[in-house]
Amino acid sequence: MAHPIRPLFGRAWRYLGFPRTHSLPPNTALAQASEPTRRSLVDTAASRSTGSGTGILLMNMGGPTTLDEVHSFLYRLFMDRDLMQLPFQSVLAPWIAKRRTPSIIQQYAEIGGGSPIGRWTAQQGEGMVEILDKISPETAPHKYYIAFRYANPVTETALAQIKRDNIKRVVAFTQYPQHSCSTTGSSLNELYRQQQQSDPNREITWSVIDRWPTHIGLVKAFAERIRAKLDEYSPEDRKDAVILFSAHSLPMSVVNRGDTYPNEVAATAEAVMKELNYCNPYRLVWQSKVGPLPWLGPQTEQAIRGLAERGHKNLVLVPIAFTSDHIETLYELDLEYGQVAKDLGVTGFKRAEALNDSPTFIQAMADVVKAHLHANEPISKQYTLRCPQCTNEQCGVSRDFFGQQKLSW
Amino acid sequence: MAHPIRPLFGRAWRYLGFPRTHSLPPNTALAQASEPTRRSLVDTAASRSTGSGTGILLMNMGGPTTLDEVHSFLYRLFMDRDLMQLPFQSVLAPWIAKRRTPSIIQQYAEIGGGSPIGRWTAQQGEGMVEILDKISPETAPHKYYIAFRYANPVTETALAQIKRDNIKRVVAFTQYPQHSCSTTGSSLNELYRQQQQSDPNREITWSVIDRWPTHIGLVKAFAERIRAKLDEYSPEDRKDAVILFSAHSLPMSVVNRGDTYPNEVAATAEAVMKELNYCNPYRLVWQSKVGPLPWLGPQTEQAIRGLAERGHKNLVLVPIAFTSDHIETLYELDLEYGQVAKDLGVTGFKRAEALNDSPTFIQAMADVVKAHLHANEPISKQYTLRCPQCTNEQCGVSRDFFGQQKLSW
Repeated sequence: MAHPIRPLFGRAWRYLGFPRTHSLPPNTALAQASEPTRRSLVDTAASRSTGSGTGILLMNMGGPTTLDEVHSFLYRLFMDRDLMQLPFQSVLAPWIAKRRTPSIIQQYAEIGGGSPIGRWTAQQGEGMVEILDKISPETAPHKYYIAFRYANPVTETALAQIKRDNIKRVVAFTQYPQHSCSTTGSSLNELYRQQQQSDPNREITWSVIDRWPTHIGLVKAFAERIRAKLDEYSPEDRKDAVILFSAHSLPMSVVNRGDTYPNEVAATAEAVMKELNYCNPYRLVWQSKVGPLPWLGPQTEQAIRGLAERGHKNLVLVPIAFTSDHIETLYELDLEYGQVAKDLGVTGFKRAEALNDSPTFIQAMADVVKAHLHANEPISKQYTLRCPQCTNEQCGVSRDFFGQQKLSW
Repeated sequence: MAHPIRPLFGRAWRYLGFPRTHSLPPNTALAQASEPTRRSLVDTAASRSTGSGTGILLMNMGGPTTLDEVHSFLYRLFMDRDLMQLPFQSVLAPWIAKRRTPSIIQQYAEIGGGSPIGRWTAQQGEGMVEILDKISPETAPHKYYIAFRYANPVTETALAQIKRDNIKRVVAFTQYPQHSCSTTGSSLNELYRQQQQSDPNREITWSVIDRWPTHIGLVKAFAERIRAKLDEYSPEDRKDAVILFSAHSLPMSVVNRGDTYPNEVAATAEAVMKELNYCNPYRLVWQSKVGPLPWLGPQTEQAIRGLAERGHKNLVLVPIAFTSDHIETLYELDLEYGQVAKDLGVTGFKRAEALNDSPTFIQAMADVVKAHLHANEPISKQYTLRCPQCTNEQCGVSRDFFGQQKLSW
């Protein structure tokens, strides 16, 4: 059945080329991101000892490491039927991907030639398993793998490496702290499909960490990044600086279906403010809304405009639903919204650093995995429940598969 | 300037008489609520010793205690320009109130002849000040007052009593744990206006508790109510019972303006589930959406239908944004949605008891006030920040007034 075009996430709209409500003057963009890395992330991820122990599969959307990978990234994104359902998708998706590649290449060029998310994820994984080997020796050795949804290393690459390493126990650990069917849901559905191919005899036992929105370590890591940014202001400016937590928006059709993402993002923001003893006023706002359909607001850009019009000069943008820098922090927050703020006279516009190599964050990752391993449950109770208005049968199949895993320890 | 009709809350739509998406068969409604109380709540509220000390003004929307009060309740509601802006409001509001009175009387008749919210609030206030006198002797004696927005005792009645009692230090304590401009915002704007009349020389010093969505005592009180309800199931049924946190919805126009209510409700629900160790799957859903404009979903009724269609037989509804029973719990959740669930074969439909006389909740109220008094700040940082797209100048005036209060201890 052909569906109307229903992309779920801003990045999809961005790549489809729907008009934005503002445009960035071409000569104001800065290339300030880190150097692109060109080494193979798979080789990096799986360079530890082989044999028994515990694999931890870090799942995220990924991003093109080099400009050459932009096309394949877009192709996978538009082919993802868990994210969006296009009419004649197998024909239309490649066509859109090809058509959009040049302009998306330009965006990645402006942030340094590629997405740093692979490099950060590898660094986080390395740090996490080192800690895990110490704090959970009974499940050691720990080895991390990376499964990106739209970029290398993709899920099948990670599974092939797990097989070569002869690992029999793997934790699928989402790197999206808050669960959305469009992100973690899509990654888990893909993992289900790929493992059916790579492990038909079910030699690997899986368990899932599907969300961790208010884990205390995550909350403390965000709070540290915000404190560091607030400290850059003079005492007078800091006093009333507004903290704007910004997260990717969702179409209202997804929200109204029962996707838990907005609520979990809100819970993270509230927990972070509690950790900060509610030191400053704040709002949770939603970025990347484009296209004609209704999405959840308030929109980040409209909020910046509204606050600027009321005379607020000091705004701290906090990316709250993503743990590493990527195009939505480096391009959208820093370049696009940074320019909007500048044009409106917001002289104290700042953006909290993404968690990236935060030791507090990497410790939190290890703590989340340790608690999960010791709880010895394949999935959370919450993951068992599909959205009340779910229309994706795959979501039921995946839940059944992961929920039926028999953990031996 | 005449605005289109923009009621903000479901109760307003209910009273306007817009069609609901379902109707309750007339003979299935049960009158199961508590007896109406006919005594004066003002007399009850302010029956303690006069003189110095601390007043605590409990602010809420209120409800008609008897059927005779339905008309004045509706009149005040439709006249509230902080809640809704009608064209020719001073003419239209009385007309709508009169026209809707008979059918709303019928609804209150079905829940026992009136709203119990006044009785519960008085009981909570009594318990709170008793505790406060013990745990905060330095601010004693404590005396509570009630300011309902649409029912007796209204704000001016409470202020007159405070004046008679010669209280010079009063805490405005919202009984909505999560802040919305439509609820707490309206109450504070009304308090600002009324105190301008009753205390022109500014003899009273005010401070404000404007939200407390994740206070640990509140969270524990909700968790207790849910545990008690889960305990009613057999172990087999309890295992996968779905917890449905239900709160009043808001029009998307209000959400997109920057109202923090949905995020704070989400934070409460998440904190309660953490307190319950995520023992069951759950969703946050939104009730009372009516009329043609888009409101935040998923809708409670649609969620019940969707879950029922997937075979869920055990649902626990939890009113998470209101602390006392009122028409939305006793009529909408119990009678309307209870009937929907019954019709769909949801044999294990339950509703967690409202906090009402929960000792844990009353202790939490006292703890919130004590912490506020000892922090010695007139308002929270968060209250200082108007919505990025705020259109109500009154919100700025009220914030300035309360923010400039000079606390002497």
